[in-house]
Amino acid sequence: MRLAVIPGDGIGPEVVAEGLKVLREVAPDLETTPYDLGAARWQQTGELLPDTVLDELRGHDAILLGAIGDPSVPPGILERGLLLRLRFELDHHVNLRPARLYDGVRSPLAAEGPIDMLCVREGTEGPYVGNGGVLRKDTPQEIATEVSLNTAFGVERVVRYGFERAVTRPRKHLTLIHKTNVLTHAGGLWSRIVEEVSAEFPDVQVAYQHVDAASMFFITDPGRYDVIVTDNLFGDIVTDIAAAVTGGIGLAASGNLDASGTNPSMFEPVHGSAPDIAGQGIADPTATVLSVGLLLDHLGRTEQAKKVNAAVAFDLSTRDPQQQIRTTQVGDRLAALASG
Amino acid sequence: MRLAVIPGDGIGPEVVAEGLKVLREVAPDLETTPYDLGAARWQQTGELLPDTVLDELRGHDAILLGAIGDPSVPPGILERGLLLRLRFELDHHVNLRPARLYDGVRSPLAAEGPIDMLCVREGTEGPYVGNGGVLRKDTPQEIATEVSLNTAFGVERVVRYGFERAVTRPRKHLTLIHKTNVLTHAGGLWSRIVEEVSAEFPDVQVAYQHVDAASMFFITDPGRYDVIVTDNLFGDIVTDIAAAVTGGIGLAASGNLDASGTNPSMFEPVHGSAPDIAGQGIADPTATVLSVGLLLDHLGRTEQAKKVNAAVAFDLSTRDPQQQIRTTQVGDRLAALASG
Ligand SMILES: CC(C)[C@H](C(=O)O)[C@@H](O)C(=O)O
Ligand SMILES: CC(C)[C@H](C(=O)O)[C@@H](O)C(=O)O
Repeated sequence: MRLAVIPGDGIGPEVVAEGLKVLREVAPDLETTPYDLGAARWQQTGELLPDTVLDELRGHDAILLGAIGDPSVPPGILERGLLLRLRFELDHHVNLRPARLYDGVRSPLAAEGPIDMLCVREGTEGPYVGNGGVLRKDTPQEIATEVSLNTAFGVERVVRYGFERAVTRPRKHLTLIHKTNVLTHAGGLWSRIVEEVSAEFPDVQVAYQHVDAASMFFITDPGRYDVIVTDNLFGDIVTDIAAAVTGGIGLAASGNLDASGTNPSMFEPVHGSAPDIAGQGIADPTATVLSVGLLLDHLGRTEQAKKVNAAVAFDLSTRDPQQQIRTTQVGDRLAALASG
Repeated sequence: MRLAVIPGDGIGPEVVAEGLKVLREVAPDLETTPYDLGAARWQQTGELLPDTVLDELRGHDAILLGAIGDPSVPPGILERGLLLRLRFELDHHVNLRPARLYDGVRSPLAAEGPIDMLCVREGTEGPYVGNGGVLRKDTPQEIATEVSLNTAFGVERVVRYGFERAVTRPRKHLTLIHKTNVLTHAGGLWSRIVEEVSAEFPDVQVAYQHVDAASMFFITDPGRYDVIVTDNLFGDIVTDIAAAVTGGIGLAASGNLDASGTNPSMFEPVHGSAPDIAGQGIADPTATVLSVGLLLDHLGRTEQAKKVNAAVAFDLSTRDPQQQIRTTQVGDRLAALASG
């Protein structure tokens, strides 16, 4: 397995080290190439994602990313120039974010009950395309626009991926989240495509919810959801709600997939670079290890993925919530469990 | 007080009747004009909001609305043609949504602690403007766009309203919620305006959060928020999260304000028409009564508003959560408390 590794900023390198520790245990054929990208490189060289690096990344089977971001960098630079550029250049149209409440994990919700959803967020369209602009900047007459672009091609492939996942799950249920009553142009397209693709998956039950209502039900009744399919921006928001109710972004894993397999897919914890705790060895690497699980699963290494996920599930069920996380200790435990 | 009343669909008429019952107790000078708008009228006549009705509405001091919506009407018709048209025609640029956890109300959150936020959502711009379109509809080449329009004029007035409210509150804190790292055009405008207006309010402490992070912290630490200022679409979502963590939309009140006073402002519970429970007399009218409180406050009838709010606070603190709500009983209790 040829893996490109982008440790990135803040706690990124710390959690990635543990992710690799676990990965090596289950996939001894691992070959890694590190790439220095992120705030530090930009500060030093002005470079975000040189084309040569992008080309090299394409030559790998997958990419593991830690975290990108630093408060010293103005908003948008690293996001648009690096993180989103990777998603767009590598056609990562499926942003996969499972949210499962593991045994032993404290949810902020009072009600007990299983939560096990798989959020399939579109990754290359919607309001994320960077389309829009500013007129009469910095004047009282300023106008700023953001254009959400949605194509049948782009919606169809992510909706299809959602159905393909839903049909393999016990509940076989898929919920489209959008705001069709206000965003009628894009909403109409999403609704039509879900209806059309659903005809090919008669076993999958389909529901629809407006994003505002869903944001509420994610809190009051998260157990009802199975697979979620949604737009890029709505997905950004609802996956963070899903992460919150299943114990926080310390546990939230994600995959940025080119489901066609043309480009390498990229796996990363949902949490950011957390500069406030960087360098202290107290970041929780669990989300990174779960991202490694998604990576293995995506590469068809199902048995290896199972080992990693089982290690995390066991470890979480036996963790003392009072005890301070030590990054390397968690990694050591998970590596030992996964290898066992 | 000349009040236009739009009972609307589903449980709308039931909750509005109780809202008026309470309002009459504290404001004996009340004169109401009912307006028949909503799904039923559209079904029967094809009319949504005739210009003559809109003109008449303008002649009132305020508008009380129950709920609009019915599953038999395709998505977007009533929203764009009636609800949003009212907001745009009457320049309701401040969508005011307090979220307070009342004593006696069960939050879905495990952690106890006071929650008292005031969400100020922009109401006439952003992705709600209806700008956008569809090309090659119903084909595999379909493209659908949604354009978010943001103006310095529109952002400034709602941001200013937020600061004016924040400065009168004990904590004097204001959080801007946006997604400046991705929506850099609109985000830049919002950030600049908040910075500029904040210079006029040196006593107000300002914070910024991305909408995804805020959606998480609304769940894990809602008590930290005081005044929130945000865009139309983000406001739609985060106010529903705020409602969820403070006991649900059965308690969520809102005001659609023309803060300039040129047009009458409109007050409505955030919940919808709830056709599943309509006609059974079991809808909770509390959100409508709290909306009446906002209405009185907006009209400068501070003492009357206080009576209504105190009635609700007392009633909630003594309600038996096991007992089924009876709409008229709750209204009777609140009316008696408010008059006392
Ligand atoms: C950092 C940012 C560009 C990114 C996004 O908005 O997609 C992040 O919030 C995420 O969810 O991965
Ligand atoms: C019904 C719909 C148009 C409306 C909105 O999106 O603003 C509702 O969700 C609300 O929050 O008042």
